[in-house]
Amino acid sequence: MIRVAIIGASGYTGAESIRIILRHSQAELTYLTALPEECGPVGKVFRRFMGRCNLQIVPLDFDKLSALADVALCCLPHKVSMGFVPKLLDAGLKVIDFSADYRIKNTDIYEKFYEVKHTDKANLKAAVYGLPELFREQIKGKNLVANPGCFPTAALLAIAPLLRQGLIETDSIIVNAVTGSSGAGKNPSSTFHYPNMNENIFAYGIGSHRHMPEMEQIASEIAGSAVRILFQPHVAAFDRGILSTVYSQPKGKVTSEQLLQLYEGFYESEPFVQILHEAPAVKDVTGTNYCHIFVTRTKGTILCFSAIDNLVKGASGQAVQNMNIIYGLEETLGL
Amino acid sequence: MIRVAIIGASGYTGAESIRIILRHSQAELTYLTALPEECGPVGKVFRRFMGRCNLQIVPLDFDKLSALADVALCCLPHKVSMGFVPKLLDAGLKVIDFSADYRIKNTDIYEKFYEVKHTDKANLKAAVYGLPELFREQIKGKNLVANPGCFPTAALLAIAPLLRQGLIETDSIIVNAVTGSSGAGKNPSSTFHYPNMNENIFAYGIGSHRHMPEMEQIASEIAGSAVRILFQPHVAAFDRGILSTVYSQPKGKVTSEQLLQLYEGFYESEPFVQILHEAPAVKDVTGTNYCHIFVTRTKGTILCFSAIDNLVKGASGQAVQNMNIIYGLEETLGL
Amino acid sequence: MIRVAIIGASGYTGAESIRIILRHSQAELTYLTALPEECGPVGKVFRRFMGRCNLQIVPLDFDKLSALADVALCCLPHKVSMGFVPKLLDAGLKVIDFSADYRIKNTDIYEKFYEVKHTDKANLKAAVYGLPELFREQIKGKNLVANPGCFPTAALLAIAPLLRQGLIETDSIIVNAVTGSSGAGKNPSSTFHYPNMNENIFAYGIGSHRHMPEMEQIASEIAGSAVRILFQPHVAAFDRGILSTVYSQPKGKVTSEQLLQLYEGFYESEPFVQILHEAPAVKDVTGTNYCHIFVTRTKGTILCFSAIDNLVKGASGQAVQNMNIIYGLEETLGL
Amino acid sequence: MIRVAIIGASGYTGAESIRIILRHSQAELTYLTALPEECGPVGKVFRRFMGRCNLQIVPLDFDKLSALADVALCCLPHKVSMGFVPKLLDAGLKVIDFSADYRIKNTDIYEKFYEVKHTDKANLKAAVYGLPELFREQIKGKNLVANPGCFPTAALLAIAPLLRQGLIETDSIIVNAVTGSSGAGKNPSSTFHYPNMNENIFAYGIGSHRHMPEMEQIASEIAGSAVRILFQPHVAAFDRGILSTVYSQPKGKVTSEQLLQLYEGFYESEPFVQILHEAPAVKDVTGTNYCHIFVTRTKGTILCFSAIDNLVKGASGQAVQNMNIIYGLEETLGL
Repeated sequence: MIRVAIIGASGYTGAESIRIILRHSQAELTYLTALPEECGPVGKVFRRFMGRCNLQIVPLDFDKLSALADVALCCLPHKVSMGFVPKLLDAGLKVIDFSADYRIKNTDIYEKFYEVKHTDKANLKAAVYGLPELFREQIKGKNLVANPGCFPTAALLAIAPLLRQGLIETDSIIVNAVTGSSGAGKNPSSTFHYPNMNENIFAYGIGSHRHMPEMEQIASEIAGSAVRILFQPHVAAFDRGILSTVYSQPKGKVTSEQLLQLYEGFYESEPFVQILHEAPAVKDVTGTNYCHIFVTRTKGTILCFSAIDNLVKGASGQAVQNMNIIYGLEETLGL
Repeated sequence: MIRVAIIGASGYTGAESIRIILRHSQAELTYLTALPEECGPVGKVFRRFMGRCNLQIVPLDFDKLSALADVALCCLPHKVSMGFVPKLLDAGLKVIDFSADYRIKNTDIYEKFYEVKHTDKANLKAAVYGLPELFREQIKGKNLVANPGCFPTAALLAIAPLLRQGLIETDSIIVNAVTGSSGAGKNPSSTFHYPNMNENIFAYGIGSHRHMPEMEQIASEIAGSAVRILFQPHVAAFDRGILSTVYSQPKGKVTSEQLLQLYEGFYESEPFVQILHEAPAVKDVTGTNYCHIFVTRTKGTILCFSAIDNLVKGASGQAVQNMNIIYGLEETLGL
Repeated sequence: MIRVAIIGASGYTGAESIRIILRHSQAELTYLTALPEECGPVGKVFRRFMGRCNLQIVPLDFDKLSALADVALCCLPHKVSMGFVPKLLDAGLKVIDFSADYRIKNTDIYEKFYEVKHTDKANLKAAVYGLPELFREQIKGKNLVANPGCFPTAALLAIAPLLRQGLIETDSIIVNAVTGSSGAGKNPSSTFHYPNMNENIFAYGIGSHRHMPEMEQIASEIAGSAVRILFQPHVAAFDRGILSTVYSQPKGKVTSEQLLQLYEGFYESEPFVQILHEAPAVKDVTGTNYCHIFVTRTKGTILCFSAIDNLVKGASGQAVQNMNIIYGLEETLGL
Repeated sequence: MIRVAIIGASGYTGAESIRIILRHSQAELTYLTALPEECGPVGKVFRRFMGRCNLQIVPLDFDKLSALADVALCCLPHKVSMGFVPKLLDAGLKVIDFSADYRIKNTDIYEKFYEVKHTDKANLKAAVYGLPELFREQIKGKNLVANPGCFPTAALLAIAPLLRQGLIETDSIIVNAVTGSSGAGKNPSSTFHYPNMNENIFAYGIGSHRHMPEMEQIASEIAGSAVRILFQPHVAAFDRGILSTVYSQPKGKVTSEQLLQLYEGFYESEPFVQILHEAPAVKDVTGTNYCHIFVTRTKGTILCFSAIDNLVKGASGQAVQNMNIIYGLEETLGL
């Protein structure tokens, strides 16, 4: 049994990680940590785990961690994470980090978007971007995996085949995405106050969303040349899920049928990607680690649609998928 | 034109009052106040009023108030209101107060449930309970009206005919009610954080909700003898509306048909009460000042169902209805 | 008083038209019609109008219509409407038609997208497109107004200033829009069955939505040259509202500040268009006839965001605005 | 591995059963049936199972069923089920039936509420009521289990300790319950059309809901004497979950603390019942087989609150729990 610690277990991705590991047949939760004011029995911090998990969420103690766990799902916030990851690695754990701190290789860009100095460039360099469908081989056996952002996961899976094949112009890609409200995290705010958010939808992060440089970096890596992406997120009144609608311009002639064939081939052996012949719906993927994709050409433009659960394939599920790959387990275990 | 001030204009009932007065043909908004940190142009505080109202929300100045307004809709919180109402009256205004401070005549009960000394017993005594369907005559021309609570409005309209006629046992009434989330007010909290509240329903205020003594007092007044009510509120994932399901035991034989006849007669000339021949739905009354009621007898128990919009008939709409009555206007103006 | 008939009063836009006319100070409902199986007292067909409107919805009788009404809001479906409008005009009424039948001037395009012969080309030619912000002068005194589609209203208001000024490339405009579910109309279906639609969002009408040619026609008229638009609608789990996100490429240099100035000038005297300095939210416009717009430039692309209520500014409210203009009334009456 | 057939696999409880069995370590899906017009690959009938299950849903063939499966989860509608269950038993399967057909022992009552002759009285007599917390011993090894209704599951678990101990009056119990909309099943209707149901809540089945006699029968069995229950269901705008609020009158003195102790003792070794010290919320149990319960006394009345997921503990999860018990497996497997 792989012994799993969750660092930052008191937030939404922490809870989702607990839910998944609880039904994993070859991994077990052994150590859960949070800030002192958010500690307590799991079943009290998250009433939905009453009777399902008897662990305590406790303040992080690296000695105990070192003794009790093999791998850490590090669910800490951006900027905070890079202060902990080196110590988690030093404690002898493999680390799957949920923050952006180990995703963006260019620290100038990181420092511009996150407005902070990067303090762990050594590990940043060593980290692999944990999108299994594109980087599976590099993930195997790795000590540090940067778990991708939710929007980049949805967008990159939607356009990877086009980029890899060099089929589209790389300077005019538009990613229009809508996320459910759990993406905002657990801290109350006026914007996400139920009577304000309910029956609502709006754009945010215009021109400045932190997932934009992440998308561009990985897209460029996939394409083998610089890719420019205009990413516009929106948030709407539902709990979970991301729907991406990606607009791109083909370099040459390509039919909708050819596009579907390309995608079906590209993702043929992927356990968690399904190519649909119609538009995907977020409700078909919520609670699962699946990504549903549809691609078509209309009026000269290629439209890619992808749907994921932001907390599963966009966070905790993908982390467990990465953990399974690191340890050479069946990739779908627990998922 | 009646000149209307709204004291505490930056909350949900303030906004709803603004919305209603804006389309009132014989009243106009002249003065809007709030705490200094919540002031600004109405269209900025509530973006939905951009272009519809050009007033500023300003800190309260009694001299200006006195010069600018005839009547105040006082939307301040419980306990705060009684510090302001005497001054509003002194400034020469008629006052319709939304708080509980002038509803509960027995100050022992008020002080127990609100855990504060009542500081304005003189005006408390003079205030009339502003439920027009039951106290219309006393409201006319009055200087201070205590606008009823949302739950009491729904529950009392549902059982008033039974109480007035002495048809039910007065010691075993159960009011089970479900409110939308706007009843919680505008301040963010973990409970009403969208990802927590969405797709949820739960009970609260068990045995201790402050609307219980208010219901009992007015019910007793209607019945002419002491009435005991067990009131259990719940909150569910919708914005607006209250559905009350009231269980009571008939003293003698009475059929469902007789009950419907009684209710249709009792509310015959009421502009805002409709007696249905089937269960009411909150969506049929949201955005309106209406109360939909159904009554029937099943297995020996009388069931009354009532639906209102908690922000309209349960707050701002009823306040305007009271204002119309005070000034002898057509009761439905603006509503 | 203008006497208003509603033809097809039993659907969602019929209901919304009733709601608006009920509070219009210079218009009154006099005649409501529907298919025989959908007739009855208004308060029974729509329980929300109990006590608020005592009319009957009856099968259409042109003689009665002619005697009772001055203007018809024709809420019939596409294709059906053109069978009725000539007779409504013959009956001496002014007509504001909600269908697409009088919007698309090129009957080849109409017939391709609606898959039916157009049977009333004479009136089609005479009809004016009822988007007041752009065609106010032509609407005045007109007998037949084609009330715009909901998506075109939101999209066209969002880009009209750019098109009029010739600031953008006209062959690469992308309109990404999300509508609430009331746009689907009142007929139940598996897709809009609550447990299927709730917590969901998905794209539809890919490359084939009927509002695409309508947008292109009017956009071309505004620009004075052919405009090509890629329109991609989505539907999400909320009742009302449309959020449009429009991507376009500037021809030359233009800053976000210049864009905002352009928009503020363009819509300066418009009662129902508000230019925001941040992203609009549908909840700020639901229940109102307002359109909130924000424009900015990011990464070389111009982004326009607009929000309307699909049943008000996108249908019944705009129809009443058109009616007010036809009759020379104050444009905001009832709205 | 236990080979599981699902009869009526194309509805909501069928889908939920598929979801649960897919992650059961000692059971596997082998045969899925539905009406011919609802057959096809599982991943097409329910897009959420694409890639997760490669079975076909096929029309029922008893020979194939007999060869392929050990146990049938029979998800057919009331009245239809009793036409199939005898044949399922004859085919040599153990049967867990989701309908009411084998729950109500008194066929006069069954025939009154379901308005049809009961055609399988022999098996009705032999069937056991599958509420494990109360009838575990009788379920073990049984051939036919009548899986309880969703409302009875929630209500009976809420009051069973009181009834078993004889602590309450048995002629004045009121069960007020609110269910999510998935309880309505998959067939579209005007009532559950999204724009009608969203933001709504209303009562239904007043005095006539079919779960009332079921509750009374089992409650009487638990109490050892006749129990009368007034059951009033409501439906609100959320997908999943039931919240029951049960009002009963204690026979003698009992404190809230004593009640909690009683409940904690009664359910001490139950894996799926959790006793809370505050009001339960449906969101804490959705997607799980848990029942959260709180009990307290206020103003002389005992209030019991219980929350379950209507599709899990109220249907498919409880069925799998029963299956586990029949076969002597660990009761929580797959749940």
